Amino acid sequence: MRSNSKIKDFKFFTELQVRYEETDSMSVVYYGKYFVFFEVARTEYIKKLGFNYIDIEKNGLYFVVAESNCTYISPARFDDTIRIYTKVEYMKNSSFNFLYLITKINNIDKSETEIVRGYTVLVCVDNTNFKPKRIPEYLREAVNNFEQYAG
Amino acid sequence: MRSNSKIKDFKFFTELQVRYEETDSMSVVYYGKYFVFFEVARTEYIKKLGFNYIDIEKNGLYFVVAESNCTYISPARFDDTIRIYTKVEYMKNSSFNFLYLITKINNIDKSETEIVRGYTVLVCVDNTNFKPKRIPEYLREAVNNFEQYAG
Amino acid sequence: MRSNSKIKDFKFFTELQVRYEETDSMSVVYYGKYFVFFEVARTEYIKKLGFNYIDIEKNGLYFVVAESNCTYISPARFDDTIRIYTKVEYMKNSSFNFLYLITKINNIDKSETEIVRGYTVLVCVDNTNFKPKRIPEYLREAVNNFEQYAG
Amino acid sequence: MRSNSKIKDFKFFTELQVRYEETDSMSVVYYGKYFVFFEVARTEYIKKLGFNYIDIEKNGLYFVVAESNCTYISPARFDDTIRIYTKVEYMKNSSFNFLYLITKINNIDKSETEIVRGYTVLVCVDNTNFKPKRIPEYLREAVNNFEQYAG
Repeated sequence: MRSNSKIKDFKFFTELQVRYEETDSMSVVYYGKYFVFFEVARTEYIKKLGFNYIDIEKNGLYFVVAESNCTYISPARFDDTIRIYTKVEYMKNSSFNFLYLITKINNIDKSETEIVRGYTVLVCVDNTNFKPKRIPEYLREAVNNFEQYAG
Repeated sequence: MRSNSKIKDFKFFTELQVRYEETDSMSVVYYGKYFVFFEVARTEYIKKLGFNYIDIEKNGLYFVVAESNCTYISPARFDDTIRIYTKVEYMKNSSFNFLYLITKINNIDKSETEIVRGYTVLVCVDNTNFKPKRIPEYLREAVNNFEQYAG
Repeated sequence: MRSNSKIKDFKFFTELQVRYEETDSMSVVYYGKYFVFFEVARTEYIKKLGFNYIDIEKNGLYFVVAESNCTYISPARFDDTIRIYTKVEYMKNSSFNFLYLITKINNIDKSETEIVRGYTVLVCVDNTNFKPKRIPEYLREAVNNFEQYAG
Repeated sequence: MRSNSKIKDFKFFTELQVRYEETDSMSVVYYGKYFVFFEVARTEYIKKLGFNYIDIEKNGLYFVVAESNCTYISPARFDDTIRIYTKVEYMKNSSFNFLYLITKINNIDKSETEIVRGYTVLVCVDNTNFKPKRIPEYLREAVNNFEQYAG
């Protein structure tokens, strides 16, 4: 289930700086915080496609996480610049996934080192009863166009 | 505005253990996490009075925080046992406050050291429009009885 | 990699109440918070074996997470009582895992419903250079005794 | 103690988008998260002055929070753009403060609405024994220059 995607396989990334709050007593980013970084990345990815998660919610849908996974290769520390690559790999009827690859950017030479990989499986549900609903066509098309999938 | 309340002035406390997630790169509890501990204490305080915050929400009210304050005396660290004393000091028409005094319990001799003081001012609001509403009488009475205020 | 362990396969659990801070705009526990609950459970598990993670750190070791995984079956909400079952399934030279099964306890009839499953793979490392080190024998023995593994 | 500073009194601000993780069951930013936003702002403020908090720590100092305060005027919600104005108001021998004023930026007309005010008092301490130390001259001068104080 672990992805072998390389940086060049991703068409989208977003960056952030590690906050002090996100570190723990080992002086590294707490392992659970990467799931927040994944959330930031998929929010930005959806914006990049021209949509807004708030509008999707207003149209009666939630995207709930059905599974999440993270593999830790190397730690990040306070104020590190990290880059989160993300892409949708598949879209089924009501579920789809996001792959993530996080790198740390060296402040001096701008080189990047892979530090984390992960994925989340999301399910599109009705926001009143949490029952699965078909992923809206506009989102399906936008992903296929952006990722250049055959749709 | 800083309280001079002593431990003996509090009729209620709750305890918890510091989680690894709550520490930061200085190996101490992150300053913002004490506001979560305050929340835990006031939730338990309301339960102690015989009510449940969920039921209060279901009856159309939210208690929103209007002001929060924390004074840090000494740090807490991972797995420390901390005791959060709390009490309501006043209840106006729609606003009331909680005072907090946090101590650290020594694991060996059970002695306690004061580490944090704080307060939060809450406002009772309608949960549809966030407009102030009068604090329900049942809560007002319960606080007055518990704290032995003249009501 | 997903575990089929049932409640009866676990010899240890710990309980906690969901904090308001742990919920999100969907009025359910944020998906990343379950990794904090996993941390609480493995800290208590190690205590149950008679050890203290702080002492392990003082002896020059860190247990760093190499992989984490969570499968979400049903949501938890504010003030829900959740029970986190956990066990060590294997111990290699320097790495070992924890399995988790989380249930929600009904406040009235005390029945429990499975809501989350997960695991974390941990690596025992030197706390100065983060290089893998052999898991201490005292911990290995304690786990084997507690879980009644053949060692 | 509450500041009357207006937007025009601040020479520095930084912006961020509210993350889903930062919201709670009331669909607004959890009250304790603003202290994280304050941290982000003062980190960026110090960078703006030409310094890096990591380098300050490497030189043997910590800036620990002695008091924090937040007044909530209006809520922020998921994906809102918020702007955090900050400035140092005073520097004593070892302690100094930051004032904060947070506004929400309307996505359409870019108008801004004040939503939160706050302050933190920090103390410069030795990072081995947490004893107060004089604030370094380079930082004192940089603040005085930036804020155009008489020094």
